[in-house]
Amino acid sequence: MSFTLDQLTSETRLRDLSLDELRELAADIRREILETVARQGGHLASNLGTVELELALHTVFDFHKDRLFFDTGHQCYTHKLLTGRRQTFQKLRATDGCSGFPVRAESSEDAFGAGHSGTAISAALGYASALDRQGDDGHVIALVGDGALGCGSSLEGLNNLSVTTKRFLLILNDNKMSIAPNVGAISRFLNHVISARSYNFIKGACSDFIRGIPLVGPHLREFATRLDLAVKSLFLRGRMFSDLGLRYIGPVDGHDLDSLITILNRLKNLRGPILLHTFTTKGRGYPLAEQNPSFFHGTGPFDLATGKSTKASPAVTFSQTFGDIVCEARQKDSRILAITAGMVDGTGLKRFAKEYPEGFFDVGIAEGHGSCFAAGLAAAGMRPVVAIYASFIQRAFDYVFHDACLQNLPVVFCLDRAGAGVDGPTHHGILDFAFWQALPNLAVLQPSDAEELRQMFQLALQREHPVVLRYPAGDASNVVPNHAPLEWGKAEVLREGTRVALWAVGRECVTACKVADCLADAGISVTVVNARFTRPFDEALMRRQASSGMLLVTLEDHVVDGGFGAFASAQLSLPILKFGWRELPSWGSVAASREKQGLLPEQIAHSIQEALHG
Amino acid sequence: MSFTLDQLTSETRLRDLSLDELRELAADIRREILETVARQGGHLASNLGTVELELALHTVFDFHKDRLFFDTGHQCYTHKLLTGRRQTFQKLRATDGCSGFPVRAESSEDAFGAGHSGTAISAALGYASALDRQGDDGHVIALVGDGALGCGSSLEGLNNLSVTTKRFLLILNDNKMSIAPNVGAISRFLNHVISARSYNFIKGACSDFIRGIPLVGPHLREFATRLDLAVKSLFLRGRMFSDLGLRYIGPVDGHDLDSLITILNRLKNLRGPILLHTFTTKGRGYPLAEQNPSFFHGTGPFDLATGKSTKASPAVTFSQTFGDIVCEARQKDSRILAITAGMVDGTGLKRFAKEYPEGFFDVGIAEGHGSCFAAGLAAAGMRPVVAIYASFIQRAFDYVFHDACLQNLPVVFCLDRAGAGVDGPTHHGILDFAFWQALPNLAVLQPSDAEELRQMFQLALQREHPVVLRYPAGDASNVVPNHAPLEWGKAEVLREGTRVALWAVGRECVTACKVADCLADAGISVTVVNARFTRPFDEALMRRQASSGMLLVTLEDHVVDGGFGAFASAQLSLPILKFGWRELPSWGSVAASREKQGLLPEQIAHSIQEALHG
Repeated sequence: MSFTLDQLTSETRLRDLSLDELRELAADIRREILETVARQGGHLASNLGTVELELALHTVFDFHKDRLFFDTGHQCYTHKLLTGRRQTFQKLRATDGCSGFPVRAESSEDAFGAGHSGTAISAALGYASALDRQGDDGHVIALVGDGALGCGSSLEGLNNLSVTTKRFLLILNDNKMSIAPNVGAISRFLNHVISARSYNFIKGACSDFIRGIPLVGPHLREFATRLDLAVKSLFLRGRMFSDLGLRYIGPVDGHDLDSLITILNRLKNLRGPILLHTFTTKGRGYPLAEQNPSFFHGTGPFDLATGKSTKASPAVTFSQTFGDIVCEARQKDSRILAITAGMVDGTGLKRFAKEYPEGFFDVGIAEGHGSCFAAGLAAAGMRPVVAIYASFIQRAFDYVFHDACLQNLPVVFCLDRAGAGVDGPTHHGILDFAFWQALPNLAVLQPSDAEELRQMFQLALQREHPVVLRYPAGDASNVVPNHAPLEWGKAEVLREGTRVALWAVGRECVTACKVADCLADAGISVTVVNARFTRPFDEALMRRQASSGMLLVTLEDHVVDGGFGAFASAQLSLPILKFGWRELPSWGSVAASREKQGLLPEQIAHSIQEALHG
Repeated sequence: MSFTLDQLTSETRLRDLSLDELRELAADIRREILETVARQGGHLASNLGTVELELALHTVFDFHKDRLFFDTGHQCYTHKLLTGRRQTFQKLRATDGCSGFPVRAESSEDAFGAGHSGTAISAALGYASALDRQGDDGHVIALVGDGALGCGSSLEGLNNLSVTTKRFLLILNDNKMSIAPNVGAISRFLNHVISARSYNFIKGACSDFIRGIPLVGPHLREFATRLDLAVKSLFLRGRMFSDLGLRYIGPVDGHDLDSLITILNRLKNLRGPILLHTFTTKGRGYPLAEQNPSFFHGTGPFDLATGKSTKASPAVTFSQTFGDIVCEARQKDSRILAITAGMVDGTGLKRFAKEYPEGFFDVGIAEGHGSCFAAGLAAAGMRPVVAIYASFIQRAFDYVFHDACLQNLPVVFCLDRAGAGVDGPTHHGILDFAFWQALPNLAVLQPSDAEELRQMFQLALQREHPVVLRYPAGDASNVVPNHAPLEWGKAEVLREGTRVALWAVGRECVTACKVADCLADAGISVTVVNARFTRPFDEALMRRQASSGMLLVTLEDHVVDGGFGAFASAQLSLPILKFGWRELPSWGSVAASREKQGLLPEQIAHSIQEALHG
């Protein structure tokens, strides 16, 4: 007889289950995650890697009174399944299903939302400090991957941890990966193999020392079968953390439920702050994901047997195109260097990284450092290209301003995933133009398709100032068979009309053409403009259209407040009917979100008609 | 005979000077800095602390081919005096004088600008990587204070350092201070006094080990007179850095020119990356500053004999007022906690920190962590108040979004120094509203004087969502004898008029009243509106004014692109004549910058008259 999720009720106390039952439950959770993600898409490898860890946490702690903080949050599926969300989990990441990330509104056991990396330590530290002052005796636990540990705010949090509270259990989920394999000295340090000479010295000299430490010693002896593991752990893996004032415990196999539960039960009664170092395998239990965890980090629906995507992918995407053109550019000019912050595959840089390792830098989840680093490269005469998702570049805003723009250095920022996506509010790239519009020396270009991205990228590389290129995930097939030549600051007229001037930003040109079709059916003649440049934009054209009495309309995959339409309206002191996001869309179908906010072509056409008649 | 700055020419080679002459020069530099800052204002304590260090660097290295990166940049005065800028240094921080920070446009020996903390390692690492690829053999040196070391991007940079380049000398200027005394585990670690037991163990067991290390050992023996210093250095001070792949050298007395020059000459021939740990005293050589380095961190003109300010300070400032009202609020409600990021004095929190140490958190130069930490406190039911300068909050933009706004947590962000100031482009707080306008759930309030700040702060504490309060440095005396009661989302009409509706944001109400006076003299009747709320703002009032045919005008101490005027214009689809910064003002007199950009009252009045007649 096997214990499965079906038998789990709100009355089940996991600590009353036998170890065998817990193992059966873990297997069933893993199956559920696999089947759900294969059907719905989602974050697979990270969630398969943390089944036992989260099951052990739920067995030992009570997250109605203790609090669990996830970092980045793409490893919370087991937690969701154990906190009464199995039904909504069936529709994972669908509009009416549960989010792929922890969300406070979704469950009282989600202490804090996440999505961007490096927030768990800081947020949990705040929460713990509050409990310290409220006389609440709940435990505060932060589950942080080794990738997120290199993120500046994680390190700022670690620096503040031991001086702020004793109530803290930091669990380091060490899988040697963030989205891609980890980089940096901390990662190297975590995986360090001690050299024979210093190792032998330490082994000889230190065994007494280890035994003498009141707490760590016995634990290490208990869980490490050999002295060398203990020595390694204490002196190599642990010392950086003990320097930071944390008690280091570990390492422990993060798939061994027995050990995990035993250790966690002991840690429950210790004063901290404590760091528990666990090793897990990304993709655990699904061989295809174990072999290729980067690919299965985040995935669309796929076939379980083959691992192949079951959803047709577009023939040409912006990411692929970027990946190709940055290689082509480097071939002609060795000053061109590519920098990313843990997003090698997602930004399309895999080929570049392989072909030009000398020209490639993955700085880890460190967008601020990466942007400032690029400014340093540019100051020395290189041509750095920074590829970061539009949402995550928000981490680097001050560096883009202070280091690149203020010094007018020629860094090209290529912002993939600009626009709303299925992952939800933390991951949409629909806020950043609001800040770009205020920065000195910065130009913002937004291609509508692959061909335009290619031309804009080449143009950007020739400029002597910083440039932002924004483009969405997905299809980048041609919007028109032949584009007009690209000219600095000039828009492209896709269709000529008389009554309405509809300016579309980037890929929204596709929607704009459909809107124009709808309006043509209603006898309304529309000029469709591909804005191309949103800062500086083609003011002269827009003024001419206004003068000729056309209704000005803008359409963008960005929030309206602080978006291009608002910018243009303020620049020209002209009224513009602005289409864009009025609120942050939820996760799930973007089409559903568009419908909700009146952004489908026929809805936009209808609103324009009303404006014309109103 | 004494060697002074007067004898220094572009031909002088510092390495040809005797040690005595260099010491004389150091004394003269110190005198010059003291006299100049006493006259002009500036950063005193940090610059007095680095005279010998920078003189030694210029003696050993050649910054036409080697590159020196300053972190934060408020310790570059000696460097400026040694790089042909003595004349402009006389007018330090004046519009026609030199900047108080390194600026690329000012000298080819300023490799990279600075102003915000935590950029030197990242930028220098970029520069070094470029030189690696260009076959240039110049040295790359980053001078970083221990305060800036706790900044997330410094730590991200450190994490990437050893895996990126061998060409790097990181000089840690350890003065146990940032602006205020340092906080955090790294700082504690740097200053750690080893406990007797583990110290004795290590001393006994490790002397052979230390001797065996090829490089560090000899150096330590040479410069440390006692073995315990060597052990402490290697095992306690150094080990965190060696974990990060840096060769640790030190500590060395940062005021001992002889030792500094000897060590730097040796380091010149070593492959790195290397960390040189130096100890310096903030305010060195000026007893008043040595005793009170926080006060003399940044200062206006002062009397050398007494240390007292020679410039009358306003009777009431926003910072003081904030400092008082946050104490009063805490007295009534122990849920109120104050968080700052190394700006205790500047934000007015000194009194709060003293009276309510349990309610106070200085997280060090870690704005991202601090903002996320506050969101964690709020999630646990507390009422956190985050006090950070408007320019530095840019570091935390993504945390304000992701952790506070997205989760709709009641954090009050109190942004001091909002508006243009004398320190220049890196320090103005004139960009942030551009991003705030795009964020969900966030309200932005801007008081015109102390009384309004008091009321707005109380109101903000009652709200169940995040609130930003923005206010400038300096005078906060009453704008009007009695304000109208504060009502959520409503503006205050300061003067009633018929022809022009002049909306002023925050302290700009003072300018607006002067503009109205000028226009009254010309027979133009002006309504002066104190906007109070910039998001949400009083749309109804503005619409009524537009309907009645008034010319809408906005005035704000913020850039126009992304400012309140642009926001209001876009929201209401109404043309607005917008006054604000069209470009980032330089350092020096704000009045001079205003004049240059047409923002003096009579200039604004003139522009409004033109608009009325145009």
